[in-house]
Amino acid sequence: MPMRIVVLAGGIGGARFLRGLMSAVPDADITVIGNTGDDIHLFGLKVCPDLDTVMYTLGGGIHEEQGWGRAEETFAVKEELAAYGVGPEWFGLGDRDFATHIVRTQMMSAGYPLSAVTEALCARWQPGVRLLPMTDDRVETHVLIDTADISGSAAGDGEGRKAVHFQEYWVRMRASVPAHAVVPVGADQAKPGPGVLEAIADSDVVLFPPSNPVVSVGTILAVPGVREAIAEAGVPVVGLSPIVGDAPVRGMADKVLAAVGVESTAAAVAKHYGSGLLDGWLVDEVDADAVDEVEAAGIRCRALPLMMTDTEATARMATAALALAEEVRA
Amino acid sequence: MPMRIVVLAGGIGGARFLRGLMSAVPDADITVIGNTGDDIHLFGLKVCPDLDTVMYTLGGGIHEEQGWGRAEETFAVKEELAAYGVGPEWFGLGDRDFATHIVRTQMMSAGYPLSAVTEALCARWQPGVRLLPMTDDRVETHVLIDTADISGSAAGDGEGRKAVHFQEYWVRMRASVPAHAVVPVGADQAKPGPGVLEAIADSDVVLFPPSNPVVSVGTILAVPGVREAIAEAGVPVVGLSPIVGDAPVRGMADKVLAAVGVESTAAAVAKHYGSGLLDGWLVDEVDADAVDEVEAAGIRCRALPLMMTDTEATARMATAALALAEEVRA
Repeated sequence: MPMRIVVLAGGIGGARFLRGLMSAVPDADITVIGNTGDDIHLFGLKVCPDLDTVMYTLGGGIHEEQGWGRAEETFAVKEELAAYGVGPEWFGLGDRDFATHIVRTQMMSAGYPLSAVTEALCARWQPGVRLLPMTDDRVETHVLIDTADISGSAAGDGEGRKAVHFQEYWVRMRASVPAHAVVPVGADQAKPGPGVLEAIADSDVVLFPPSNPVVSVGTILAVPGVREAIAEAGVPVVGLSPIVGDAPVRGMADKVLAAVGVESTAAAVAKHYGSGLLDGWLVDEVDADAVDEVEAAGIRCRALPLMMTDTEATARMATAALALAEEVRA
Repeated sequence: MPMRIVVLAGGIGGARFLRGLMSAVPDADITVIGNTGDDIHLFGLKVCPDLDTVMYTLGGGIHEEQGWGRAEETFAVKEELAAYGVGPEWFGLGDRDFATHIVRTQMMSAGYPLSAVTEALCARWQPGVRLLPMTDDRVETHVLIDTADISGSAAGDGEGRKAVHFQEYWVRMRASVPAHAVVPVGADQAKPGPGVLEAIADSDVVLFPPSNPVVSVGTILAVPGVREAIAEAGVPVVGLSPIVGDAPVRGMADKVLAAVGVESTAAAVAKHYGSGLLDGWLVDEVDADAVDEVEAAGIRCRALPLMMTDTEATARMATAALALAEEVRA
């Protein structure tokens, strides 16, 4: 029986890790639970950036350098929308990508849940994993910012604080102002998507890729039942630090970590997940100092190169994660 | 005060005539009542082929040779939809065109009526006319065909007759089988769009371009109140024959004329409109024989070249139509 691996994935980091994992254990049966908290409606279309990044990356359609969006992309639709004065212009949807959102929106308008739509889209892309949205319900990650920080901008009016959609914070504002809170709106009412809890219960190991611990993995864990299912599965849970040398490897995870009161260090993120959830943690060589601190918190820890520079390097990371899982299990 | 002209327009024929009309009387105040009976939902998007053809043609965005769709068009979205196995593939929407339908659909989902959406789209295109949908209500032209004629095709099942959407008949089937009836479904319940009746009542002249008399002009006239408003306006109503030498100048109007029991001749189309509606009729030189027959039916008639080969030739046709209107008025 092939090893059954469950991976909680955000976007680029999760997708690239998965490519390495599949290279390391090509016969494994991998279920990906994808974050949908950064989904957004744009131009009346349902856009699921993290699910699509996983699907395109594993299906061979990703823009490699960029890490998101389609290869050989064109932007005629976007140009035309701008000519109509219809925005937002800060979210870069290409023509090929638009087709995905058109198909998804049409299916959802016809009454299909996101999980069924995702399966239909994957029938084309054949990602080689089972890609499950964390939920079919609406969860939308909002970021609380100071209006004073954006005064003068279109988003700013009045005093105090204001919540903006995660994509607005991340893509439009490039996380350039402090985040005071990150709220997965709707998560408390959401049910795990079809197959999510079953996949966790039936798994041999659960992996947290070096994805954003707050807005990617954290949002998935915020769906009631997911965290409990992982804890109760009785299988090793191993994560890889997205923080290397006290800074995010990519993206702006430090901004949202600060919002939840967590330092941007490999050890702090492990302790944020906590020993009740996490059994093993991989940190980069440069953070070898953190190993003792993490182990003192009850989480087995190893240091090794954690830069996903290519599939081979990433496969070595995945292999190390699985080795640590076996060590935990034994 | 500029001459106030109301034009009932379908797609390509109407749009090209309008370009000639605007060249002939650049200072005129032109209101176009556009056919929406061939509107269709494709990929979850609201597509208005006739309105868009008028808008693109007068706004300088039309694919000139083709007569519909956008110039310098690309087809990435369509290719991707096909890769997802999502059809129909027989309706050729380009990337630039898709943007129009995305904007329209988004606005309509937000609750705006088609008339308001059309005005918003025209704010970009500046067609130089006021473009009014014939109605904000749903009217969908269906064509009744024999199932025996399409047996073996996906559309055929069972015995008897079946109704297909006009676009399916026209674009997919290329009007290759007999049409037994043309039904503007919903027209009997439709109300004229905002401004339609007022524009007719306030007009100095009403023109029927050489558009399809059944599925373009006929559908507009099927909206309750429009025909009556034209008859009651007390202004000259002049049409141009879309039939030259017993055949449609373009398109397959003969097929739908047969469905309503009208011969494909310039005289038969004039009599189909009837002297209760039509005051003047222009036929092509090759149909000069028809003049006496049309006049015998109580409709003033002139013969002149009716081929819209370029804007100048079309402007001469428009000038002749307006001259005939003045003759009728006097």
